[in-house]
Formats: sequence, structure tokens, C-alpha cells
Amino acid sequence: MTEHLKIKVDAGVMEITWNRPDKKNALTNDMYRGAAEALEKASADKSIRVVLLTSEGDSFTAGNDLSVFAAANAGTSNEAPQGNRWITTISKFDKPLVAGVRGVAIGVGMTMLLHCDLVYVANDAKLSVPFVNLALVPEAASSILLPQRIGYARAFAMFALGEPITGAQAQHDGIANVCLPADEVIPAAREAAKKLAQRPLGALMATKALMRPPQVMLDQIKTESVYFADRLRSAEAAEAFAAFREKRKPDFSKV
Amino acid sequence: MTEHLKIKVDAGVMEITWNRPDKKNALTNDMYRGAAEALEKASADKSIRVVLLTSEGDSFTAGNDLSVFAAANAGTSNEAPQGNRWITTISKFDKPLVAGVRGVAIGVGMTMLLHCDLVYVANDAKLSVPFVNLALVPEAASSILLPQRIGYARAFAMFALGEPITGAQAQHDGIANVCLPADEVIPAAREAAKKLAQRPLGALMATKALMRPPQVMLDQIKTESVYFADRLRSAEAAEAFAAFREKRKPDFSKV
Amino acid sequence: MTEHLKIKVDAGVMEITWNRPDKKNALTNDMYRGAAEALEKASADKSIRVVLLTSEGDSFTAGNDLSVFAAANAGTSNEAPQGNRWITTISKFDKPLVAGVRGVAIGVGMTMLLHCDLVYVANDAKLSVPFVNLALVPEAASSILLPQRIGYARAFAMFALGEPITGAQAQHDGIANVCLPADEVIPAAREAAKKLAQRPLGALMATKALMRPPQVMLDQIKTESVYFADRLRSAEAAEAFAAFREKRKPDFSKV
Repeated sequence: MTEHLKIKVDAGVMEITWNRPDKKNALTNDMYRGAAEALEKASADKSIRVVLLTSEGDSFTAGNDLSVFAAANAGTSNEAPQGNRWITTISKFDKPLVAGVRGVAIGVGMTMLLHCDLVYVANDAKLSVPFVNLALVPEAASSILLPQRIGYARAFAMFALGEPITGAQAQHDGIANVCLPADEVIPAAREAAKKLAQRPLGALMATKALMRPPQVMLDQIKTESVYFADRLRSAEAAEAFAAFREKRKPDFSKV
Repeated sequence: MTEHLKIKVDAGVMEITWNRPDKKNALTNDMYRGAAEALEKASADKSIRVVLLTSEGDSFTAGNDLSVFAAANAGTSNEAPQGNRWITTISKFDKPLVAGVRGVAIGVGMTMLLHCDLVYVANDAKLSVPFVNLALVPEAASSILLPQRIGYARAFAMFALGEPITGAQAQHDGIANVCLPADEVIPAAREAAKKLAQRPLGALMATKALMRPPQVMLDQIKTESVYFADRLRSAEAAEAFAAFREKRKPDFSKV
Repeated sequence: MTEHLKIKVDAGVMEITWNRPDKKNALTNDMYRGAAEALEKASADKSIRVVLLTSEGDSFTAGNDLSVFAAANAGTSNEAPQGNRWITTISKFDKPLVAGVRGVAIGVGMTMLLHCDLVYVANDAKLSVPFVNLALVPEAASSILLPQRIGYARAFAMFALGEPITGAQAQHDGIANVCLPADEVIPAAREAAKKLAQRPLGALMATKALMRPPQVMLDQIKTESVYFADRLRSAEAAEAFAAFREKRKPDFSKV
């Protein structure tokens, strides 16, 4: 188990905490794998009734660690884009999942929230899905989940322009349930998780199963993966990663 | 015909009124059957162009009369959960349907609003879908219609926590079209029904048919029914009904 | 090429401008055909990265020129309702499409916005879909796109009552991204189009393809067309067009 993930269980609630605060909790393969295994355990273990997802430090997560993307683009790795296991596991997770989000939630850090059942955010959190900045495409079924949640035009703007929205805006748009001052977010999310843990788990699981049958999302994730893999190796992505490394503005006009 | 339902027709508008105000218009099998038959008549009768759904007293309806659920849970009835005929009939109803809602709209009282075309609510109405309180699951296709209407996270909160929203919130979220002071709701809904009755009925019906083909909802209602029947006989539901009878807080931790 | 359409290309942005301001830019077959051909050209031409859709004069467009509908209703034309080519072309258009909307956007003028990726509107723009006023039905897949965007009840009200919403309301409801004073709309939309043109086109196109696969919309357009053709020849439509010609209130109670 990686030190970059903390997992504890208390009174029926499993708390999974991103714990790489010096890197804004950017997600590594070890963190993805550990979190996916924790969800699988939570699903199988009758004593665990709810999972709470949160973070150490001032960020929720900056998303996928860019070194993984860059390696795939450079051809120095033959791995499929990592995080897929996490994404499919969270899509299928069958018990209530609560998130407490402060600071930035970027890329998969934002799209995983679309798979949570209750979302608590800091008023000044910053949520963004800047896949297009890197010449990539949305993942985690967010290409259908985000338009469903906030309407096509707003979703297109978030994807195409890559600009963040605040937690307050996310609450207004229905991405989050509740927005609060940053220091109240984790306690409130923990309280909500405890409350859910006292409710009838069978009824909650059946309700979730009726509301979000996983197959539609898993199919979309598969489709997105094809585009994503193709994009990772594109000339546009090469330009995006080069510009990132060289700390300059990318120029997509020639590629 | 039960005395707990009033039905009148005026100028092309059929008005169906829940009329069991001393029981907050809790719905009995007679009321479901009478209302379903009225909708069937309205569909078949060319002179009826619009249906208005409203209530006597200070509540819209407290939802399914709990004695029906309790009997099914206790095994003293072999009937499928009643209300199914009403739910399928309202899902398929092919003419414009307007609702005027004051006071509480609980359970099916709220979910039937998702099948209405125009909804007028009192600012201080209280809408809730507390199926999980009884260890049950959403019905009337609300497991897909409510997330479509207000987004997944808000819908999960309404179902999982069972907390009411006000009429004003319902209007804000797009569940209702208009919110008003309670004493203005029925007159305004009646006015809207009259206005619709003067519009081209064939065009309204064709528009409704294009916007909401019933089959998707009927399929979901069938799926929900399987879960619902299973839930009604669950140990969780037994605990919920026992706690209700004994006026105590249910304890789901052991079941 | 008709004089009622202006098309220019600058820095990767094709600007298509409705240019029949003395008729509130009501759309003729020549305008539909010209705009559809322009989109096809934009799709095929690598140097064009974004399309901006806007208008001369104080209206976006009053929608389909009514003479076309009236001819079809009178049986003096055997043409299918025109605009279908435009509608299918805009549904399938695979590059970013930005709209700048001032004044009225009626009927297809409003429904085409549901196919745009970024929409800028004047605060006091007036958007309406009054197909039912003419005893017709929604088109351009708006019978599914509008409910998806603003919820079923609000969409039904817009279709059934034919009443306009303002640009500010459209922004609030997620139909538009940004609302502004009228004189700032076109410059802001043009700026957004330029900004999109500097982003990685392949990534934008792949994102759009994932978010809105055209087939669902094309299927719905086909279904709507069947209803639409039937409606155009209905007695209700005859009454609506007669009342329009005779400048009187239609009476649908007898037809």
C-alpha cells in the first residue's frame, strides 16, 4: 500500500484520503490501484456501508500525474492511460459514495465527482476538466455525465476552454450538493457519510442501482478510451506536452 | 366511485381532485382506480382536451396509504404494491396534464408530478420522496425522471435522505413551472388548463408524444417494481414498519 | 449564392451571417441551402477551424419563412418542409460552432441554437418555439434536446404556450453560455470563436463527437418529420394559417 493514500474505517464508513499534498495529490498508478482496491473491499465487506472520499492538504487532486500522459505520448510507455481501473471501479461502485472537496479538482479529480452520490465542496474550490489543453478528450464517461448534469453548452465550454468553475458555481449547477467555507467541508461530508451509514443499506444500494445502471457509463468509458489513446499519440498532444515542458504557449495552428 | 375523489368537466377541462383531506389525501386503492379510470376516459373522450389534477384541503397528497405497504410487508396481502395502475396510466396519458399543488406531496404524490406537463406549486409546498425511510425504492420511473430533471446528485440526496424541498425550490430546480402563494395556486393552474384547452389539441398531443415516448418510462416502472416488491418483503422494511408502528427510530445496523 | 447570406473566413473562423434584416432574417430555401453548403465546406476545409453564426440587423432570425409552411398546408407545394437539409447538416457538423444572438430567435432560429457549442445572447433577446401556435410540432430534434437542456416541464411550457424567454433567462437555464448587452454580443462571440480557433482542433472535434453522437438526433429528426408533415396538412394547421392570413384569433375548438 502506498503512503500516498490513507484508508480508515469507522462506524461503517470507509474514508479514502488522497495523501500526496506536496504534489497537490496528483494521482499515481499506486494511488489509483490502492483506491480501486479499497472500493472493491468496501463493496464486498458487509460492515462497510458508505465510502467517503477526501484529501490531505489544500487540494482535492490535481488529477492524473502528467508524467504518465507524457510517457505515453513520447512512446516511452506502452501502458494504456492509467486510471482506467479506478474509473471503471468507481463507475460500478454499488454503495453510497460521498466526496469532500477543497481546493483544486482537475481532470479526473473533477470527473470522479460525477460518480459520487453526495458531493460537498468548498465555496472557493476550483473544478476544471482541461483535457483539451493537452489535446486530449474527456474520460470517466464525463462526455455524457457532464452534459447530463449541467447541459450541453455549459459542458462544452468547460471541456473546450478548460476554465475552472468555483465550488459555489458547481453547487449552483448541480455538480455538488452543498458548498461551504473550506474548513467546514470535510466535517460536513463526514457527517453526511455517517448519516447515510445509519440508513437502510439495501434500500440505498437498490436506489443507486435503479438510478445509475453502470453499463451505459462503462460503454462510454470504452469509447472514450479509444479516442483518448489515439489523442495521446497525436501531433497535437506532442505539441501540448512540448509546450508544457518548455513552459511556453502551445501553437496548434501547424499541427 | 369513491367519495375520496371528485371529478368534474368544464369547457374541455377535466378536473380530478384528491378528496380525503382528513387523511392528507393519502391514496387508497379506490382513489388510484378512480383516477386511472378518469384519465382513461379523458383520453378516449374527444370533448376533453386537458386534465387538471388538484386536491381538497391543505395537502396535495401524503402519498400511498401506508396500510397497503404494511400489509404487503407483513405478508397479510398478496397484492402487488397498489398504485401501479395509476402510475402506468399517468405515464401513458396522451393529453396535456396540469397539476396544482399545495401543502405536502409525498412519495407518489411527488413522483406523479414528474408525469405532469405543467406544474403549479405553492411557495411553501413540501415535496419529498422518502421511499428509503421505509427501506423502499423510488417508483413511477422517478429513478430516471428525477435525475433527468434536477441532476443525479440532487436526486440522490432527495431519495437517500428523504428530506423535503419547498415549492420555491422545486420551481428553481425545474420540477415545477410556477410557484405562488398557496391560495393562488389552484386558480392559476385552472387558468393554465383553460388556456391549453383553447390551443390545437392535435399539435399538443403530437408534441407530448415526441417529447416523452412512454415506453422508456414503462420499462423503468417494470424494473422498479421488481426491486420494490423485493424491498417490501425485506428485513429492512420490516424494521422500518415496526419502528413506524412503535413510534421509535428504526435501527438498520443489524438487519 | 443568395444575397440574404454573408459568408466570410478570417483566421480560421468562418462567419455565416443571416442577411435579410428587412424580414427579420426569416429563412428562405436559398438561405438554408447556402448555410448548409457553407457548413459542409467548413467541415471539409482544413483551414477552417470554427464557425460563427450570426445576423445582420436587430433580429437573429424569425425562423422559417411562413410562406413555405402555408404552401405545404394549402397543398400548393409537394415539397417536404424545407430547412431539413440545414437541420441535418447542423446536427452532424463536426467542428466547433458558436452563435451570437440578438433580438428574436423564433422556431428554427431558436432550435438551431441547441446544436451550437457556445451560445452568446443579448440580455433582451427573445427566444421562442411557437410551433404549436401554427398547430405544428417541434423540429431539429428539439423535442429531445430542449427537455434535456431545461427539463421537461419548462420545455413543455415553451412548446405548448409558445411564449418567449429572454436571453438572460436562456443563460440562466443553460441554453446560452453568456448573456450581454446587445451591442456586445457579436464582438464577444467573435472573440470566443477566435479563441477556439487557437485550440487543438482534433481534440475539440473528438470531444464534440463523444459528447453528441449525431445519430440520436438524426433519428429524432426523422420521427419529428413524420409528425410535422402530417401536422402541416391537418385541419388544425389550416385553421391556424387561415387565422394568420385573416389576422384573427384561431378557433381550434371545432377542428
